[in-house]
Amino acid sequence: MPELRRDPIVNRWVIIATERAKRPPIDVAQPISVRAGICPFCPGQESKTPREVLAYRPSDGAGARANAPGWNLRVFPNRFPALMIEGDLDRQGDGLYDRMNGLGAHEVMVETADHSRSLAELSSLEVEAVLCAYRDRILDLSRDTRFRYVMVFKNHGAAAGATIQHSHSQLIALPVVPKTVSDELHGALEYHRFKERCVFCDILRQEQKDRSRLVYENGEFVVFEPYAPKFPFETWIMPRRHRAAYEDSARHELTALSDALRVTLHKLNRALDNPAYNFMLHNSPLGSGSLPHYHWHMVIMPTLAPVAGFEWGSGFYINPTPPEEAAHYLREVDL
Amino acid sequence: MPELRRDPIVNRWVIIATERAKRPPIDVAQPISVRAGICPFCPGQESKTPREVLAYRPSDGAGARANAPGWNLRVFPNRFPALMIEGDLDRQGDGLYDRMNGLGAHEVMVETADHSRSLAELSSLEVEAVLCAYRDRILDLSRDTRFRYVMVFKNHGAAAGATIQHSHSQLIALPVVPKTVSDELHGALEYHRFKERCVFCDILRQEQKDRSRLVYENGEFVVFEPYAPKFPFETWIMPRRHRAAYEDSARHELTALSDALRVTLHKLNRALDNPAYNFMLHNSPLGSGSLPHYHWHMVIMPTLAPVAGFEWGSGFYINPTPPEEAAHYLREVDL
Repeated sequence: MPELRRDPIVNRWVIIATERAKRPPIDVAQPISVRAGICPFCPGQESKTPREVLAYRPSDGAGARANAPGWNLRVFPNRFPALMIEGDLDRQGDGLYDRMNGLGAHEVMVETADHSRSLAELSSLEVEAVLCAYRDRILDLSRDTRFRYVMVFKNHGAAAGATIQHSHSQLIALPVVPKTVSDELHGALEYHRFKERCVFCDILRQEQKDRSRLVYENGEFVVFEPYAPKFPFETWIMPRRHRAAYEDSARHELTALSDALRVTLHKLNRALDNPAYNFMLHNSPLGSGSLPHYHWHMVIMPTLAPVAGFEWGSGFYINPTPPEEAAHYLREVDL
Repeated sequence: MPELRRDPIVNRWVIIATERAKRPPIDVAQPISVRAGICPFCPGQESKTPREVLAYRPSDGAGARANAPGWNLRVFPNRFPALMIEGDLDRQGDGLYDRMNGLGAHEVMVETADHSRSLAELSSLEVEAVLCAYRDRILDLSRDTRFRYVMVFKNHGAAAGATIQHSHSQLIALPVVPKTVSDELHGALEYHRFKERCVFCDILRQEQKDRSRLVYENGEFVVFEPYAPKFPFETWIMPRRHRAAYEDSARHELTALSDALRVTLHKLNRALDNPAYNFMLHNSPLGSGSLPHYHWHMVIMPTLAPVAGFEWGSGFYINPTPPEEAAHYLREVDL
């Protein structure tokens, strides 16, 4: 059983594999890319994966069986999960240290039956289905009271850590809130105490007024380069209206998010010649209600340069591309 | 002039290059490796670097000139600094954002005149000279009241971000405290308020009693794998006695640190077949006095696997090697 251990100084939880024989790999599955047809994420290969926990099939597909071809989108547990779904947390002290069992869910979402198309190449409706499936899985996982947070993320391209080419996202349900998000929650709460306003709403207002870092907007979402990005072309997508939890999004909001995400990926692909990228949903913890100080957003980070020890050791980033220039470039790019 | 900008949510400062023509590179210099003799860090090539700010020469080297061969160790400003040394901070608000001029010092320390020897291959006395030079430079930079922190770090090997093979460290003096260290300071202060003890001293005591994560110890230093390491074989070197500031180290402590660092590097080289690595000094801010809650330490991270989007986005790490196993392996390895 993997273990969750807490750093006693900065309170960061880390997953530690404690059984040598069963060490969980960092990413989703086999470290080799495979051809269409024999790819374990392709239709017809369902027996190579654990049984599905969600699948979308065409509405006229009466009689379509689970774990058989005919799906448009399919979610199943990771074959090599970083965390185990069964058991109790069994929180324990170990002297001054804290540990608990490495409980959690680790799922793979295959975004399309088509082996060759990337997320950016899917239709608006197909991307919307992916965004709906994120919501459906978060809502389902939130019923397990052992979990505090669901991380939704995507690694696209080998440089970003993807080991299987067939387009997919991942979900990890955790009994703890990851440090990046808890730092955001903490900072946003401080700001709210001081100003009695949501810092994310204030950022949106300033970005819409200033416009120098704006990339795109539609009726529901604003796409912009943040003021102090860690990496060149780091791009945020944020709902215009204050929304703490992604899973509270209405269907028309996910339609608009599909538009914003597709436009953003197309612009990044044009500007940076189809870069590898990661994106991650920064969302409020499960069951935290409609927090007045937190506002979910999606962070997209193209993988443009490796990270050196300086950044690792210090948490101090040197970004050679001003966000105003990146935004200008992304605004102007032809689609 | 580069700019320091603060993320308004998590309060992390980032260096942003604002002039396109003069974008500072992430690492020290030219991205190509060069042969001994024409390497800009070699003796005889001093004219290729800015003028030295510190050099150690043999004590019998009467008449040796600055910026000429004959040195054993040499420190000079980075030719492509990430920050600029001249000017005022000029702190400004920009709506809800905060910025200041990208002021700082960025120095390169060439650890040996010999192009071919790595830090691990230097003698005890030579490594001690490097550690003394860290202290000397921190003390000198601390007299500039614009600076709050001096980062001392080393990238060894291309996979760790080193672009020049000739063995060197880097120093960056900053007008802000980097987030990794401010998170440690904050956590350690909370612990001290609660327990009225230094969390690092408590960790040392527990590690020395438990012994499962111990790697090496001598009269002044303890080398161990931390309880919740982010990466396999992440190794900490910590002074036995409570010391907030590295620059307060006495000479005999630096002698003992030289021993501990050399043994650690030799063990890592044996165990992991000469890995690329980064190390960084986690030190208290300049002029913060002898803090009762902070305790300097050195963190060494071998570069064993690339980091995927999961870790980046979440600050959530999956470590496939338990620190107890890594420590066992490092204890047993023959030197």
